[in-house]
Amino acid sequence: MDYQKIIDDLHREISGDDNPGEVATYIPELGGVSPNQFGVHLLTVNNESYSAGNSDTAFSIQSIAKVFSLALAYKHLGAKLWERVDVEPSGNPFNSLVQLEHDEGIPRNPMINAGAIVICDILTTILEDPKRDFLEFVRQLSGNNSIDYDRNVAASEDATGFRNAALANFIRSFGNIKNDIDVVLDFYFHLCSLSMTCKELAESFLFLANNGRTLFGDRQVLTPSETKRINAIMLTCGFYDEAGEFTYRVGLPGKSGVGGGIAAVQPLSYSIAVWSPKLNLHGNSVRGFDFLERFTTRTGQSIF
Amino acid sequence: MDYQKIIDDLHREISGDDNPGEVATYIPELGGVSPNQFGVHLLTVNNESYSAGNSDTAFSIQSIAKVFSLALAYKHLGAKLWERVDVEPSGNPFNSLVQLEHDEGIPRNPMINAGAIVICDILTTILEDPKRDFLEFVRQLSGNNSIDYDRNVAASEDATGFRNAALANFIRSFGNIKNDIDVVLDFYFHLCSLSMTCKELAESFLFLANNGRTLFGDRQVLTPSETKRINAIMLTCGFYDEAGEFTYRVGLPGKSGVGGGIAAVQPLSYSIAVWSPKLNLHGNSVRGFDFLERFTTRTGQSIF
Amino acid sequence: MDYQKIIDDLHREISGDDNPGEVATYIPELGGVSPNQFGVHLLTVNNESYSAGNSDTAFSIQSIAKVFSLALAYKHLGAKLWERVDVEPSGNPFNSLVQLEHDEGIPRNPMINAGAIVICDILTTILEDPKRDFLEFVRQLSGNNSIDYDRNVAASEDATGFRNAALANFIRSFGNIKNDIDVVLDFYFHLCSLSMTCKELAESFLFLANNGRTLFGDRQVLTPSETKRINAIMLTCGFYDEAGEFTYRVGLPGKSGVGGGIAAVQPLSYSIAVWSPKLNLHGNSVRGFDFLERFTTRTGQSIF
Amino acid sequence: MDYQKIIDDLHREISGDDNPGEVATYIPELGGVSPNQFGVHLLTVNNESYSAGNSDTAFSIQSIAKVFSLALAYKHLGAKLWERVDVEPSGNPFNSLVQLEHDEGIPRNPMINAGAIVICDILTTILEDPKRDFLEFVRQLSGNNSIDYDRNVAASEDATGFRNAALANFIRSFGNIKNDIDVVLDFYFHLCSLSMTCKELAESFLFLANNGRTLFGDRQVLTPSETKRINAIMLTCGFYDEAGEFTYRVGLPGKSGVGGGIAAVQPLSYSIAVWSPKLNLHGNSVRGFDFLERFTTRTGQSIF
Repeated sequence: MDYQKIIDDLHREISGDDNPGEVATYIPELGGVSPNQFGVHLLTVNNESYSAGNSDTAFSIQSIAKVFSLALAYKHLGAKLWERVDVEPSGNPFNSLVQLEHDEGIPRNPMINAGAIVICDILTTILEDPKRDFLEFVRQLSGNNSIDYDRNVAASEDATGFRNAALANFIRSFGNIKNDIDVVLDFYFHLCSLSMTCKELAESFLFLANNGRTLFGDRQVLTPSETKRINAIMLTCGFYDEAGEFTYRVGLPGKSGVGGGIAAVQPLSYSIAVWSPKLNLHGNSVRGFDFLERFTTRTGQSIF
Repeated sequence: MDYQKIIDDLHREISGDDNPGEVATYIPELGGVSPNQFGVHLLTVNNESYSAGNSDTAFSIQSIAKVFSLALAYKHLGAKLWERVDVEPSGNPFNSLVQLEHDEGIPRNPMINAGAIVICDILTTILEDPKRDFLEFVRQLSGNNSIDYDRNVAASEDATGFRNAALANFIRSFGNIKNDIDVVLDFYFHLCSLSMTCKELAESFLFLANNGRTLFGDRQVLTPSETKRINAIMLTCGFYDEAGEFTYRVGLPGKSGVGGGIAAVQPLSYSIAVWSPKLNLHGNSVRGFDFLERFTTRTGQSIF
Repeated sequence: MDYQKIIDDLHREISGDDNPGEVATYIPELGGVSPNQFGVHLLTVNNESYSAGNSDTAFSIQSIAKVFSLALAYKHLGAKLWERVDVEPSGNPFNSLVQLEHDEGIPRNPMINAGAIVICDILTTILEDPKRDFLEFVRQLSGNNSIDYDRNVAASEDATGFRNAALANFIRSFGNIKNDIDVVLDFYFHLCSLSMTCKELAESFLFLANNGRTLFGDRQVLTPSETKRINAIMLTCGFYDEAGEFTYRVGLPGKSGVGGGIAAVQPLSYSIAVWSPKLNLHGNSVRGFDFLERFTTRTGQSIF
Repeated sequence: MDYQKIIDDLHREISGDDNPGEVATYIPELGGVSPNQFGVHLLTVNNESYSAGNSDTAFSIQSIAKVFSLALAYKHLGAKLWERVDVEPSGNPFNSLVQLEHDEGIPRNPMINAGAIVICDILTTILEDPKRDFLEFVRQLSGNNSIDYDRNVAASEDATGFRNAALANFIRSFGNIKNDIDVVLDFYFHLCSLSMTCKELAESFLFLANNGRTLFGDRQVLTPSETKRINAIMLTCGFYDEAGEFTYRVGLPGKSGVGGGIAAVQPLSYSIAVWSPKLNLHGNSVRGFDFLERFTTRTGQSIF
């Protein structure tokens, strides 16, 4: 399979189309991004890499970081983790609070904000220095020590994050947050502020395509069975209220962020990251989604 | 892979365990089933079959039939189908009506009752004689002309189906049901009453593992791409409020019914049907779920 | 207090203002009403009457009839009635179905559709010939034997009443409807189709201002205590999602209908009916609401 | 009417009955109250007072204070207040958050926590020193300068008030809170901690029965029209999810608190406060509710 040719073709074709959608604007750091940037990076389990466009430009990965925090918490707690957060898709976001009430403070899954905040609480308990240790974990996944938080983004999130503060307080009222809310939210806002390139994202997701093992440093992060389970969660819960649509049209486990990034894996084969800042109404990158749909169609590969 | 040995081992191990859960009792025909029956049938795309226990005993497949009605409607309408029903997981059942209201009568997916009723409405418009033609479709999938509705089950559903009548009238108020409600519901209740064995179920699901092609008669029911999409919908929506759990623990696309059956596929490899009448709180067969989890663990196979 | 002068003044003032809002159009019989009609009739417990405008034109009283069905069921069952329907305001209509689910089929109050349908079911059980006997009850309240159902309105409601059919089936699924749903809904649609003038409405509401006693025929319909309780329910539940607003601005127990009518009472003093077809977004008559607010302000009378 | 005899009779009768229900225990200061205390105080607009039992024992008035904060904000802002909070009853508490979402951060009424928190935000903007000025307002209403906050209660509320913090952050996310959340909540928790006797409560509510005029100091707090409107809001919204039930059975505008107090008014006639700590499932004082129902029945007085 000539991945490079397919990636080049699709990048050119899509770059020639209209670029619909809207850049996220709820914090200034996202709103100011140049909207026509478009990068792709694919990395195989055999350490072959293919890329196109702005694959080396760092962007705000936002919710994609929830996969890293989940992996780290799962590595530490194993199946005990599911006492604190469920693995079911969440349906419409409009009822996230009523679902939390119905489920007595147990978030539906670790990919929605409520679940990621509980994961941050868990890591706050486990880790000696959560922000430092988490960053170290991501750097080890990708083999790249220059990955860092964007403090301006974190500060902006903090200043406008009233909904997340509402969620955290609500969950706390059910006893499912144990640490100081301000500490947990500060960690959560940092996590979402991670700045990475497509190349770095593909590198750091590779272990999920590789039975839990990193290429860089050859470390077994999770067991093969645990790795499959993270992939299963991404597939059912990774795209806000479009998880079904993404699974239907693309057919790969993955995770999106409102910075316009999407990272996905073809198990035992490759990881891939795409970035284009303009989002559809569900908060997913228009071009990223489009690229991946055409890519799995053209390669004839999906998990189904 | 020695499927027969693994199936025999697991059947024996699980048969030796407790048999927890409750048989569905909302209609007398389900409540009277002997609770310790337990059957398995696996069929590969190479037409090898393996079975254990009560694999030739017919049972009420209930919601598993929603996969057949979806496939038949999709075959006729293609992607236009998604104007009438969405492909997103539905979250807690407790808010199914409020979601329908929010989504203006478009059901979240074809695997929940609301969605299956809309599919029945679509088929009522398309088919000359819906009940006859649908039955013929299922018989062709499995290559078995003796498959039939259980009229007693259909009549019992009809007599107690006030919630389904509420759903149908509610959807109709948004204009998303076009035919007479009584006709649509009668078709829906018949569809749910299909009586099949594990062997027949595995046979009729085989095309979903075989790029859309039946073994029996060698008919292309759906294109490979369409087939993947049905599998994607089963994976995200096939197990009531346990779709995430099933994907997490088993990792195969499938569909369950309150008669205690589960049918699933490993794409390009096999279809499998399991049946044991006792259900967990989410309406899924306890032993069926358990068997499939151990089976994908022991074989090391899942789509992830 | 010179009621006639105040009524004339307000009728003239309001007739000179714009006439905003929209006539209900969901059935043709309502949509075709001439929108500038505007009638008022006030009747005191001393049998003095005052009127203005189209007070002798019959219109479709719609939900105002729910007060009559409640009074008749309460007269028969007394406090046992509250085992079947509650007396709490219902909040936003958007969650009426989820509230029914939460409350296991017990409607929040008898003034919403769900509650009125349960009352119709109760009367179907109690009355020998529900439509005949209910009509007779309304005629006796008003002392006017020519009041009748509008069969065209009833037929139109029946043809488009899918939401009410959804409600009825949903309630039935909880066991809180005992009779055949079609029979109950037919009765309900007839009840809503009652055609009455402002004069007749004021006459038939007079007993609620008169300790439960009609002026015409001098019949004790309810005890003084029961009468107060009907008034209390009207106050908290009589104006869809504007019950608080009506209580706040007008301060009288009353009930509105989407035909543009409002009937209200000042206990121990008078009943009053106003009619103007154009409705605000909550389904209440704009001029009717406006008239009553100015009337209680100008007379300095309200229950507070 | 011999109020003293009726009060004495009822106090004796009810004291002789069982004392069912549960004392609120969510903060230790409430849980430690002796459960058999039972006080009543009635004050007429002619300055006649009648009392029984523990009418001079101070207790935590909790949500009753929401009437004072509403009156003070209304006095300052007039009808502009309703741009920030609505006047509709709220239905089941289970959906309070989903209602806030539906209504874009505008609480349904000033008697629920969400609405009272918005009122506190408004007062924080208006008042020079909110806690001091609000306390001064309550003291002037009652003519009693010794009324004060209970700092232990306020501190306990603060420590466990995660749901209120969730509400406040959620409302803030819609822009309907303007001041620092911690400041607003601190004010809110103090307000709920007010410690008053039945006598003091009746005195401070008297202006609501007296066209807006206090007995003590003879000050016009609100206009007669504004006063009626506060009473209307209490009637439709004053008793959590039992507003309809209280209106139905008692028929007076009033407000309850989880400290076991209820204050109510008969317009132009009297104010009355009852206190007994044991609550029913809706958070209203069992004996307080019972006393007032029997009192309006025995006196034949209610607003209907």
